Order: sequence, then structure tokens, then C-alpha cells
Amino acid sequence: MSERLLVVSTDCHAGLHIADYKPYVESRYHEMLDLAVPVQLDMMSKASESFLIAEINEAWRAPIARQLTGAWDYAERTRMLAGDGIAAEIIFPDGITEYNTPPFGAGLGLSPRDAVPELQWAGAMAHNRWLAEFCANDPARHIGVASIPLLFDVQRAVEAVRWCVDNGLTSVMIPTLWEDHPPYHHTRYHPFWEACEELGVIVHFHSGPAPHPEYFGRDWPQEDNSEQLPGAMGIYVSEVMWWLYRPLTFMIWGGVFERFPRLKAVIVEGGTLYMLPPWLRLLDHNYHDVHFSAKLGDFRSHLSMAPSDYFRRNVAIGASCVPRADLELRGAFGPGQIMWGSDYPHPEGTWPRTGEYLRQTFAGFPEADGRRILGENAVAFYGLDRSRLQQVANEIGPEASLFN
Amino acid sequence: MSERLLVVSTDCHAGLHIADYKPYVESRYHEMLDLAVPVQLDMMSKASESFLIAEINEAWRAPIARQLTGAWDYAERTRMLAGDGIAAEIIFPDGITEYNTPPFGAGLGLSPRDAVPELQWAGAMAHNRWLAEFCANDPARHIGVASIPLLFDVQRAVEAVRWCVDNGLTSVMIPTLWEDHPPYHHTRYHPFWEACEELGVIVHFHSGPAPHPEYFGRDWPQEDNSEQLPGAMGIYVSEVMWWLYRPLTFMIWGGVFERFPRLKAVIVEGGTLYMLPPWLRLLDHNYHDVHFSAKLGDFRSHLSMAPSDYFRRNVAIGASCVPRADLELRGAFGPGQIMWGSDYPHPEGTWPRTGEYLRQTFAGFPEADGRRILGENAVAFYGLDRSRLQQVANEIGPEASLFN
Repeated sequence: MSERLLVVSTDCHAGLHIADYKPYVESRYHEMLDLAVPVQLDMMSKASESFLIAEINEAWRAPIARQLTGAWDYAERTRMLAGDGIAAEIIFPDGITEYNTPPFGAGLGLSPRDAVPELQWAGAMAHNRWLAEFCANDPARHIGVASIPLLFDVQRAVEAVRWCVDNGLTSVMIPTLWEDHPPYHHTRYHPFWEACEELGVIVHFHSGPAPHPEYFGRDWPQEDNSEQLPGAMGIYVSEVMWWLYRPLTFMIWGGVFERFPRLKAVIVEGGTLYMLPPWLRLLDHNYHDVHFSAKLGDFRSHLSMAPSDYFRRNVAIGASCVPRADLELRGAFGPGQIMWGSDYPHPEGTWPRTGEYLRQTFAGFPEADGRRILGENAVAFYGLDRSRLQQVANEIGPEASLFN
Repeated sequence: MSERLLVVSTDCHAGLHIADYKPYVESRYHEMLDLAVPVQLDMMSKASESFLIAEINEAWRAPIARQLTGAWDYAERTRMLAGDGIAAEIIFPDGITEYNTPPFGAGLGLSPRDAVPELQWAGAMAHNRWLAEFCANDPARHIGVASIPLLFDVQRAVEAVRWCVDNGLTSVMIPTLWEDHPPYHHTRYHPFWEACEELGVIVHFHSGPAPHPEYFGRDWPQEDNSEQLPGAMGIYVSEVMWWLYRPLTFMIWGGVFERFPRLKAVIVEGGTLYMLPPWLRLLDHNYHDVHFSAKLGDFRSHLSMAPSDYFRRNVAIGASCVPRADLELRGAFGPGQIMWGSDYPHPEGTWPRTGEYLRQTFAGFPEADGRRILGENAVAFYGLDRSRLQQVANEIGPEASLFN
């Protein structure tokens, strides 16, 4: 009998309801938390009128209320993972629909916009404490991604990374947008990259952040500007992946991967994969081209390889819910770069029908490539305990016959 | 004997040295002008230490000093156009290397960043007055693109457009970056699009603007931050075309071309053409896709066509100095969309060796397509006087044998 598939979801989410983080927040911030939580709940509620359409979500949530509690309930979560055949998962913050996000804006957006640095740090560390506990239930299966508000204080971020490692967390998420702070080519971040490289901590960028006020209006979500700003959502979904790639544009050209060659980074849930090859081709074009940029002087000498070489060596792609058409582009990437994800418990995820999705998407797909994308690439990239995970997979994993 | 080629350059530049604009600036701004010019000259000089490398430019300029005066000297300009075989040209501001840019930041960048609106308007109108005079030398051959600081005052922009038309200018350039102002999907700009559509005025976006302070540092160009911000130039050249496409992303999704179906726009000197098809595919993907964005509600109903349909109907591409490899992508665009440009008198242009460039680039290229790209598309898009221009071409235009 052939071994069952070892499936790893590189895009899952978990978190408490915002109010339930209180025990994990340092007590000196409790007064601010009590003030902030109702404000943040109100904002999320108003946002759900236009961004995550409330009616759609209500209809979607009603029959799966219990399954959604897996965002924080460990027993329910393992039941959900078993149902989807998932042996291990990478866990980002924010269940979204249940308002389960860390306080003070320390969740998936992790935006420095309008943030009070001290409070965002408090919210991030509250989530990280809870996450470390949650993953400790079975560290081989649950890889938590800690929230690190890097922009405010690089030295503090280095200390936070050390705290993470000491507490079993070896993946971190940093802001995708830097707003008015220096971007990631700035050498001020070198101590952070150095610590991550030294400690084997993987840096994550998760799709979602974008300059929402540009699209939806400066007062969004407090006011409904949709009459004055038609098409805002179309613009958002058309631009959001560019904002996800952007940190890598800065890191690659900034020589971060040249200087820290073992540093690993991931971009997650960037939507369709077909924008990545043209973006890489453009970076390389500007590395190799000389005529049109001659007036700009030599801006390549600090890089020993072409930009796409760093991308292939140092970066992996979290290809959540990837459709078959995108899988056919795999030749444009390194064989170890594409990693599947279920996006549990988000509405656009493959769960709780991952089995059905897998059969539809991978039928007739080459098994060796399929095994890599569905799990083996993540095992290698994150350095997971393969033998332990194969034991789990042998109980809950999908049959290899799905490739037939 | 076959007719000579009618060549139109859709990307040329002209302008006075910044100090020489004084006679065209309203006298009430002269005091401010006297204060501003030395500051702007100093900034440009410092910028040339890092952005337009001074040494490179000195070496480049020395043997062509006279040719560069065609940026403002009409006789020299017509001599240059004749040498390049160019019958007509679209004229943007800024010769750059001779510091010939309109005052108060009203030139090619036309950035609202750090601008005093009243002064930028004064600088823009000074350039527009000079440009109208310059083009009046031979209006069939010289199509000036007026500078319109639209973001500050939409009603004033409408009046400026009417002034332009009254003075023979039917092309305008508006800011590519809006900084803290509302983007182009905002309905506040409708009166401007309406005036342009009604008067047949074509809206231009010229490549170049980008968030330079992010790349080069907030104090750039006053301080040299290159040690702290390695790779800044590589990031800039890799991102600049995205900032050029961005206004169209907002206009298309904002329904501007849906509401003003005869409005015409151009993007100019966006570098390689191969990023355009993936960008259009992405816009269309987000128009047709339903599953992954179901949670966002219906954001397409205000558009009767897919985004790429508006792009093909309303937008032309100024493909300055286009290489042969990019021409092979022409099937991805409408047959009338691609328009060649020489970029005279910028350092990266094909001049003064356009003849050599044309023979190298178009040898063996289908003549019908070549004629369209090199001139006929611009004639149709801008509604130029074809018979008059063919007369000019018959004297100075290249031989059709270059396609052999």
C-alpha cells in the first residue's frame, strides 16, 4: 500500500476574539485595552458593511458556526484539520469573521498607520504568548507565525525574535506596508535580518495590506464613501498582490539576501501565480539592461546574482487554494518554492472540502510534483519533523490515488 | 516610388531653462520666482550627483551641446527632427539635462508633494503659454502637452483646459502620483474628464514619477543616503512603470471610461511593454473571477465591459525607443495602440541616430504594422493633418526600404 500524502497547509489562521486576549496582555495595558476593544469592534463592524459584506458572511457562517471555533478551540481545530487531511499547518493571526484578531492593530494587517507603537507591541506580544501556548499542544503539527511590529523599534524586534525562539516559535510576520517608516532596503533593519538568519527564523509577508484609505476614502470605514469612490474594491483586489511583492523588491535590490544568504522569506496568499514571473523578469531586466539606465550610473555592483536568483534561493511562495491553471506555471519557479495552503478558517479557503478540491485540482497531475507542492516543499523549507508528520498523515492524509 | 514613411514621435520634450520662464510667469509671482529658482537649481544640481549622474551627463553632453538647444530653439529643433526623419512630435515638458523645466515643480514630475498650489499653477501656466507660442510655429507638426496640476482645483483645471484649446493645445498632462489627494476614481474629477471628452483633449501620463523619498530617503537629494539605502535605484527602475499604470487602474475601475466613453488617455515611456499584458490580465481576472472575492460583494456592476476592453478602446501606449523584442508583443494590444517615440532630447532617446535605430529595429518587420507604430497610429489617435504631414515626410522621412 502506498503511503498516504503528507499535506501541509502553509496558510491557516488562528486567534482569540479580540476581548479574550486580555489575560495575555500585560496588566499595565489593561486600561487601554478596555478602551480600545469597543472602538476596534465598532470599526470592524462598520467595515463589515462594505469590505467583508455582513449579509454574505452571515449566510456563510450560519451552517459552520462550530467549525469556525477551531480558530481558537484546539479540539475543534484538530477535528477540522483531520477532516481536510492536513498533517501540519503554518498559523497566521486573524480568523476575521469572528472578530478574533489581536488588539491594538497587531493582527494580519500589522499596520503602523494610526498605531501607538507601545500598544501595538503589547497586542503583538499578547498574541505571540497565546500562539506559543496553542502550538505547544503539538509543536510538530502547528507552526505559529509570531506578529512582530518591526518598524517601530529594530532592537526590540530582535529581542522579540529571541523570545519567540525561546518559546517555540520560529516563524515571524512583519508589516507588509511601512507607511512613513524606512522601507526594507534600509540598513537599520540589518540586525533583525541577522538575528532571523542566525536563529533560523523565517520572515513572512501575508497578503491583505494595501493603502485602503486611497481606495475607500480617508474616513473609511467610518463613512460610506462608495458613491464618491466607485470601483474601490476592484482597485484593491487588482493592486493587493503588488503590495505583497513590494517588500521583496526592496529586500532583493537592497542586498538583504546578498548579505544574509541563509535568510528565508515567504509571501503568502498572493492570489494568482502568473504575476510572479513577469515581476521577476522585470527585476532581472533592470539588472541586466544597461542602455536605457546608463544615465543612472551603476546600481548593480552590490549584487552578485540577478534578482530572480535571490528569489529562487531565499523565498518560498504560499500558494493558498491554488487553481490547476496556476500549477501549470510551476516550471517558472524553483521546484521547492510552491507550497499549498487551505486558508482555514477564512471564507475563501478550500476547507472544509479540501478533499474535493484536491481531487478536482490534482487529478492527472504528476504525483512527484503534487507531493512537493502539497507538503514536501513545506517540510523542507520549514525543517519540519517528517517522520512524525508522516505518522499523522498515515491516519488522516488523502490517498495518493487523487493524482490518478 | 513608394511614399516615404510618415514618422511621429509621441515622446519629445521641450522647455526653457527654468530662469527663462520669467517673461511667461504672471508678474505678481516674480518675487517668489526669484526666490524659488536658485533653490530649485541647487536641488537639481544636487540630484544630479546621484540620480542623473553628473559625470556621465557631462561626457554625454559635450559633443551635442548645440543639438540640446533644440529643447527651446525652434530652428535647431526642426533641424534635429529633420535629421531623425520625424514629421510630427508630441511635446512634454523638461529637457532635464539643461535645467529646462517649468518653475515651481510644474514640469514632468508635476508632483503635489511639497508644492504650493498657487505657485505650481503659475509655473504650469507659464510653461503652457510658452508651449502654445512654440507650437504655433507649425501647429501640424508640434503637438504640445500642457501641464495641468489637476489635484489642487478641479474647476480651475477645467478652465485651464478651455484656455489650452483656445490657444491651440489639445493635449494635457496631469499628475501621475496624487500623494495625499483623492485618486482618479473619485467623482470629484468628473468635470475634468467631461471637459476633456467634450473638447477632444487627450490626457497624458508620462513615466518618471515615483515615491522617490521611499527609495532615496526623506532628505534626498539634500543628503546622500546611499550608504543607508543600498539598491534604491534598482528599486526605482523596477517600480516606476507600476506607478505609471496606476492612474489607469483607478480610472478603469472607477468607471471613468464607462461614463466618458470618448475620453482618450496615453501612458508614455513605460519601458518594456511586456508588463502590460499581465497587468491587463490581472484586471480582467478580478473582473471575471467570483469565488475568491465572493466575500467582498459585487464590485463589477458599474462596468459594462472588462477592464482590458476600456484599455483597448480609450488608451494608447507611447512606446518610446521600443526594442524589437517588445514589438513582437503587438498582438496583445489593439492594432492602433502602440505609438513610437524618440524621446528627444533625453539621454536615453534614439536621437540623433534614429535612422540607424529604425533600420536595426524594423529590418524584416511587416511594413503595414511598422507604418502604424511609427506614425499612422499617432496620426489617427491625435487626429493629425495627415496630408500636410506626408508632405513633410516626403522631404525628411525615412525610406520604406528600412523594412527590407
